[in-house]
Amino acid sequence: MSNLFGAELSVINVGLSQFADPIRAAGNDVVDVTWAPPAHDDAVARALAQLVNHPDIEAANRKAFDRYLSAQPTLTGVGLARDVLSDLGDRTILHSGPPIAWEDMCAPVRGAVTGACLYEGWAGTHAEAETLAGSGEITFAPCHHFGAVGPMAGIISPSMPLWILHDPIHDNTTFSNLNEGLGKVLRFGANNQDVIDHLHWIRDVLGPALTATLEQLGTLELKPLMAQALHMGDEVHNRNAAASALLIKRLIPAALDARLDPDTLSAVVTFINSNDHFFLNLSMAACKSMLDAAHGVAESSMVTAMARNGVNFGIRVSGLGDTWYQAPAAVIDGLFFPGYSTDDANPDLGDSSITETSGIGAFAMAASPAIVQFVGGTSSDALANSRRMAHITLGRNSAFTLPALDFTPTPAGIDIRKVVDTGIAPVINTGIAHRDAGVGQVGAGITNAPLACFSAAVTALAETLQPGD
Amino acid sequence: MSNLFGAELSVINVGLSQFADPIRAAGNDVVDVTWAPPAHDDAVARALAQLVNHPDIEAANRKAFDRYLSAQPTLTGVGLARDVLSDLGDRTILHSGPPIAWEDMCAPVRGAVTGACLYEGWAGTHAEAETLAGSGEITFAPCHHFGAVGPMAGIISPSMPLWILHDPIHDNTTFSNLNEGLGKVLRFGANNQDVIDHLHWIRDVLGPALTATLEQLGTLELKPLMAQALHMGDEVHNRNAAASALLIKRLIPAALDARLDPDTLSAVVTFINSNDHFFLNLSMAACKSMLDAAHGVAESSMVTAMARNGVNFGIRVSGLGDTWYQAPAAVIDGLFFPGYSTDDANPDLGDSSITETSGIGAFAMAASPAIVQFVGGTSSDALANSRRMAHITLGRNSAFTLPALDFTPTPAGIDIRKVVDTGIAPVINTGIAHRDAGVGQVGAGITNAPLACFSAAVTALAETLQPGD
Repeated sequence: MSNLFGAELSVINVGLSQFADPIRAAGNDVVDVTWAPPAHDDAVARALAQLVNHPDIEAANRKAFDRYLSAQPTLTGVGLARDVLSDLGDRTILHSGPPIAWEDMCAPVRGAVTGACLYEGWAGTHAEAETLAGSGEITFAPCHHFGAVGPMAGIISPSMPLWILHDPIHDNTTFSNLNEGLGKVLRFGANNQDVIDHLHWIRDVLGPALTATLEQLGTLELKPLMAQALHMGDEVHNRNAAASALLIKRLIPAALDARLDPDTLSAVVTFINSNDHFFLNLSMAACKSMLDAAHGVAESSMVTAMARNGVNFGIRVSGLGDTWYQAPAAVIDGLFFPGYSTDDANPDLGDSSITETSGIGAFAMAASPAIVQFVGGTSSDALANSRRMAHITLGRNSAFTLPALDFTPTPAGIDIRKVVDTGIAPVINTGIAHRDAGVGQVGAGITNAPLACFSAAVTALAETLQPGD
Repeated sequence: MSNLFGAELSVINVGLSQFADPIRAAGNDVVDVTWAPPAHDDAVARALAQLVNHPDIEAANRKAFDRYLSAQPTLTGVGLARDVLSDLGDRTILHSGPPIAWEDMCAPVRGAVTGACLYEGWAGTHAEAETLAGSGEITFAPCHHFGAVGPMAGIISPSMPLWILHDPIHDNTTFSNLNEGLGKVLRFGANNQDVIDHLHWIRDVLGPALTATLEQLGTLELKPLMAQALHMGDEVHNRNAAASALLIKRLIPAALDARLDPDTLSAVVTFINSNDHFFLNLSMAACKSMLDAAHGVAESSMVTAMARNGVNFGIRVSGLGDTWYQAPAAVIDGLFFPGYSTDDANPDLGDSSITETSGIGAFAMAASPAIVQFVGGTSSDALANSRRMAHITLGRNSAFTLPALDFTPTPAGIDIRKVVDTGIAPVINTGIAHRDAGVGQVGAGITNAPLACFSAAVTALAETLQPGD
């Protein structure tokens, strides 16, 4: 120790740079290492300390993760929301993300709700629809509360056709609406007559055609198709070009066998063919299915949903029941379409982050170097995202492998403890909606889930531990 | 210099390791650098020296490469070989690779020729067909001599339907046969009744259905579709899963518009859907089109064809007319299907190396990490192949970009001078046929074009230079 003050020092300083200022002032070399203590907050740090390496939580996570891995989401049909969702009220509208009241909704979601009221015939004009939406006569609820997911505004009203997926292993059923295509669409808050007419076409033509097609096809397991798409450049969230094409290859022979009227068949094929995101809603419902299998395992710290309503970002955790742990949704600094910028962007919106929760999307971005043209970054960023997410996940999903990482399986099963411990927030690829209703998509980008959701969940999970646990 | 014998030496030895044995024996450190002088042969080295940096050759290559880049291969129709190939004799059979006589052909090509005689009705039994093939009554010629290309045996006989591609920029027309699918197929030398019946179905059902479909579709530019497939994990030679799916998306609406009989439509869709290599033959004809545009530029050292007949590997060079420069075809040490090994493999076979000649296939392997499961290697090998080929090519083709290399365009335009100078042989992804007729595919792998073809072409090109050039 006596030598310390005589010798020439080479110092590594961990944490605040100012710690080393006196050493620098004395003329010594200092290397600063960026580091922050986990959890940012003493109470959260104490809660985290209770949870880390806790044998009950480890056991619960193994169970939850195994249930996630063994899920087999299978497309079984298409049906109207009112017929297939349990206990959906007559005048109920489902939306994306955690619960939110009409008066708190962002403009694109309000626009989509307004459109749904017109679509259902509950109002004759936009003004009447808005009045009705604020009157208390409409029940609002998250899609997630009905086993469903929807991209962007995520609006599901009773007479909308839904994809129906069943997981025979865990006897779970999940749902999503049908993708409307690009341009002015309800999910981005558009609600003019063209949008409503198109939704009626989806209900009256596309839905029945798909029902007839699926009757010929029988059931279709979706994980193998998604796995194949990951080998074809999709991350199956913001890039679904391959998955949509593979789905078309499966549907067309069955559609021909269904002997649909030729004009209907042509119209349906043309519509599906023109939309490289057609598979997105199926991908989301499949991810919801895998995660519902993992949900409800007491003391598990595995995240089973991440979803945004355009105002708040919420997560659900397997061992924490149906509570949402929320924080304000971020504005995304992504790649904007010509003429738009961050100023035009609505905060993060939609249930589609269920894909990242399930280990695909940005977690599988190594499979999809081409997506950087859409969401930004470079192909090495894409690899780095998949590698980094392995630090906050419970394991890997061998159903989904990443060719560019020599077929390493995708990291999956977000652990709230690891997120809080490392400060690494789950990464999400996402579309960006205009902050005004009806304008539509203005860009896409890469964002992160807010850490505050995970800190809150860590605190809550620690409270569930029994004394002596 | 006087210090040299006193000082301690650190020696870098370039070339033969033995050069440095005395230095090592004297106790000094030696680092060996592997290096060989270019061309392996004095005469070739002299010819190469005449060609390197020759202004006429540089100018010719710029012209040839620009013509390659500007080609726009466009699918225009399907027709029978006898109707669409100029001056095809009544009893002519085209085969892959450079010219070869019946008695010199490998077993799979003989098997395919035998099958073609049966398919055409020129013989009633296999024995009769073989006798006829060896009788001199059948004219054999390379597909390339008729503007066509065919995978593996590459057999085209007069009543086979062909894809017709036209390049309106250079008014070139190129052709390929229709892909038969997997299993026992003529291109691998199978010729039993099932194979012949299937070829008749292709002629009588598939060909006319595609003709009717393309009449509805109009013309289809193929480079954009191939570019999209490169962003979806294909290298568009041994992996065509995305390109085939994209083609199906284009064909189906037109097939519906053609109002084909429902059973025909179902059969055709089922057949195309089941074959992820369906696009291969179109890819090959498109590559042939781009390279035909570059062919025939006096003094250009750009390679315009690489093709194998199962015995010899041949190349053609833009400035060297229609001469083939040949060397023995290699046996490929690839990934074999269960139960097969190198002992079962026929030497390298087929016109499909036209894809590498055109900058896709193994040259674009960075786009297709998933293909290593089929041809061997790791995803980093795939990137390395695309990078290494840039050392022997004239430029890059911005029509075809590689997402995993941050959208760098694929290297294209093989320069015989650079191949001989660097000793880097063009890399080729390929299927492997069994050495016996009729067994079929036994594996796939990565191989290299024999350097001797390029040395011979370098020598020949030097001879074309005018005195004083």
